[in-house]
Amino acid sequence: MNIFDGLDQHIQQSRPRFEEWLGRLVEVPTVSMDPARRGDMRRGAGVAVEYLRELKAEAAIVETGGHPMVVGGWVRNPAWPTVTVYNHLDVQPAMEPEWTREPFTFAVDGDHYYGRGTTDDKGPALTALLAAYFAVEHGVPLNIQFLWELEEEIGSPHFAAGLANLTRPPKARQDAPLPVFRKPDSVVVSDTIWLAGGRPAAPYGLRGNLAARLTLETAKREAHSGLTGGVARNPLTELAAVVSACVDAKSGRVTIPGFYRAVKPLGKADRAQFLKSGFQVASFAAAHQLTKLRVRDRAEAMRRLWAEPTFEVHGFVGGYQGPGVKTSIPPRAEAKVSMRLVPDQDPAALFSLFRKYVRKLNPDVRVEADGMLRPYAADLGGPYAETLRRALRFGFGKEPAFIREGGSIGAVVTMAEQWKAPVMFLGLSLPEHGYHAPNERFDWGQASGGMKAFVKYFEEVSRIPVKRRVR
Amino acid sequence: MNIFDGLDQHIQQSRPRFEEWLGRLVEVPTVSMDPARRGDMRRGAGVAVEYLRELKAEAAIVETGGHPMVVGGWVRNPAWPTVTVYNHLDVQPAMEPEWTREPFTFAVDGDHYYGRGTTDDKGPALTALLAAYFAVEHGVPLNIQFLWELEEEIGSPHFAAGLANLTRPPKARQDAPLPVFRKPDSVVVSDTIWLAGGRPAAPYGLRGNLAARLTLETAKREAHSGLTGGVARNPLTELAAVVSACVDAKSGRVTIPGFYRAVKPLGKADRAQFLKSGFQVASFAAAHQLTKLRVRDRAEAMRRLWAEPTFEVHGFVGGYQGPGVKTSIPPRAEAKVSMRLVPDQDPAALFSLFRKYVRKLNPDVRVEADGMLRPYAADLGGPYAETLRRALRFGFGKEPAFIREGGSIGAVVTMAEQWKAPVMFLGLSLPEHGYHAPNERFDWGQASGGMKAFVKYFEEVSRIPVKRRVR
Repeated sequence: MNIFDGLDQHIQQSRPRFEEWLGRLVEVPTVSMDPARRGDMRRGAGVAVEYLRELKAEAAIVETGGHPMVVGGWVRNPAWPTVTVYNHLDVQPAMEPEWTREPFTFAVDGDHYYGRGTTDDKGPALTALLAAYFAVEHGVPLNIQFLWELEEEIGSPHFAAGLANLTRPPKARQDAPLPVFRKPDSVVVSDTIWLAGGRPAAPYGLRGNLAARLTLETAKREAHSGLTGGVARNPLTELAAVVSACVDAKSGRVTIPGFYRAVKPLGKADRAQFLKSGFQVASFAAAHQLTKLRVRDRAEAMRRLWAEPTFEVHGFVGGYQGPGVKTSIPPRAEAKVSMRLVPDQDPAALFSLFRKYVRKLNPDVRVEADGMLRPYAADLGGPYAETLRRALRFGFGKEPAFIREGGSIGAVVTMAEQWKAPVMFLGLSLPEHGYHAPNERFDWGQASGGMKAFVKYFEEVSRIPVKRRVR
Repeated sequence: MNIFDGLDQHIQQSRPRFEEWLGRLVEVPTVSMDPARRGDMRRGAGVAVEYLRELKAEAAIVETGGHPMVVGGWVRNPAWPTVTVYNHLDVQPAMEPEWTREPFTFAVDGDHYYGRGTTDDKGPALTALLAAYFAVEHGVPLNIQFLWELEEEIGSPHFAAGLANLTRPPKARQDAPLPVFRKPDSVVVSDTIWLAGGRPAAPYGLRGNLAARLTLETAKREAHSGLTGGVARNPLTELAAVVSACVDAKSGRVTIPGFYRAVKPLGKADRAQFLKSGFQVASFAAAHQLTKLRVRDRAEAMRRLWAEPTFEVHGFVGGYQGPGVKTSIPPRAEAKVSMRLVPDQDPAALFSLFRKYVRKLNPDVRVEADGMLRPYAADLGGPYAETLRRALRFGFGKEPAFIREGGSIGAVVTMAEQWKAPVMFLGLSLPEHGYHAPNERFDWGQASGGMKAFVKYFEEVSRIPVKRRVR
């Protein structure tokens, strides 16, 4: 019997479980960035372990030195290929005034699922999980293991340490007995976004990231600008000057000396892929609700989004935030900035460059890194890309576009390097789902199509021949 | 009998009333900047009217079109000179995390009075009130009338309208019968700050102010900097660039073209006064808890504080304010800025200049004025200055320094122009009281000395001959 025969019906039947599990997981506010959420992070991991065990998978919480990670799955036959499915269970903060619902109260409205983390990345994680369970139950000869991180949104600072702990021989490990974890033959990541609904997209590259906090203190308390202005230093004005010296605000061109030195010019093959992607400036702007853009040219927009680095200011802390103008000088201020990076920019090297430059601009400003992720570029050819193409077509009835992704997933580079395994991206989110934005949502269309695509992916991956190491 | 004979004892006896009244007034959060406090503004005015009436003064609330003002006093003989005492009863917001007590819960700790508004300006207002009552009770032949504004902290937008309403013939007025209000022969303002405790200081000039809000919207919702960065415009980065083009952050030199055109160079007499003032850079820095300064030279510091204009950034709204770095691009941002102005800079003319310049820098930025105050410079000679000198010496046992004040009081220029009357400054606040700062306080030493100084001032002013108009 073909395992795909009862698939659509099975997926419909799994909907109540999917919604109940997504709801429970969304209602644990796993905001990795917020030190006050430490307990919730562990609670979220516990819920995930429960889900795995309920599906008869092995599962455990693995310590990383930071927030834990969750591993588990079905590793049943050393002769079979092994795939690791990567998702993350931590979420962005949700403090924007635009939220029209409680961000950590799950809400179902028809086919839509509302709440922080529904699309990034708890919904895709559970989609992959239920699909894997189906594949395993139907005898697909594949070891499937899950790796669910809880520090993705803060740049995966302890991911490598967690992996090391996970693959250490059982005796040397610090924690309770873990499931057998096999070095995978391939990895599939479900944490990326299509260009538009109805057209699957599979990225083959990611930008890196370097986030930093600039802080400056010039007094011990707020000062009256009439009484002190002219002599008192203003940390907000000074930080504004520093960031303004790092980027041309209009063009977006980064003005840190040496910043572009390692940037590889965009190749012909990439440019051709981009042009075939179906990317449209107008629908991009509409999906993200951007009313003003730096460029309108299609090719140039894709180049900037996928193959050019950036420098962004995300917030100035320390000034007056209320109504009107309070004319006082803050004692200290902080600027939150980040840079998206492209191959072959190295975040650590750029951080040194940046810090040196800021020190020259204003020696009193303290510069601290707040997460570094290397950029990633995968190979477009080979059986895994072909499998991915067929899986997405099977799940959604349309040929996927191969694109790059402007965002960053820190764990990807670590996994690719540690395991020398291809990392593929089977993302399910849509632009209108509001990644990192208020009123985040996911939907049943993407979840059900995603389950179908994942089942197909697992079934085909089980047939890709792998070189077996001698055990 | 000399009215000063029982004065010290009387002041001691008035302490419980002073503390009770100050406490009640401080606990009404009259934050004029906060639209949510509209009811509290009127409640504060009501409390002030009650106080005046309890002292057998006439009193009324006068409509201005904005927050009301309070007028009242004892106008008993048209042949006597008339003095108007100006204070304000509105306060700054109190949202700083540094507050160690509830800002709107009055606390007495020995001789210290804690709470928002204790020193700016409710404490000085009640000091002047109790002194005036004493003078009136003891037969000083002077009409004393109070003018208590409730929009000082937002730049007195309706003060001129309030004055016009107040001095209109009774029939033409919109509100209930008001006390007789006489055009005063002189005005005394108690809303300024000494250079240091123990050394009274009387300013003879004020800087003006021009506050503005710059706003820019580039999207309808927050965007993911990975998914949109490079093409999406960043309103925070753009506003940082705009403000950075308006001022040299290090030197403080304003770089708006034409900004200094009307600035009068500092005269020899002013410079001499400044040097005699006792101003010390180290104690100035200590009083305001400034740990880093733009200049350390004494004469240059005074010149910058009292005779040079400034451009300050007070806050950037719209970015991420939480822990870590949230790498999203805000849809809109606001920069709150202000400029302190010196004679003969005109805020309205400078606003046009500023808006034109910002429009040139970035045509999408909206510029809105948020309060304009003209600078003020009084004459140092004449009988009122001499009276003020003697009053402060009497109250505090020390010769006052005549200085300029870096702050702004919008009402001063309006009163001086409308009434053609000299405006003198009998301020009682100390730098350590924390004007506009967290943990604001006042103290009994300044209140009791202030009462003494005010009684002396009223007694002497009653003897300054005035030209009587024909009635």
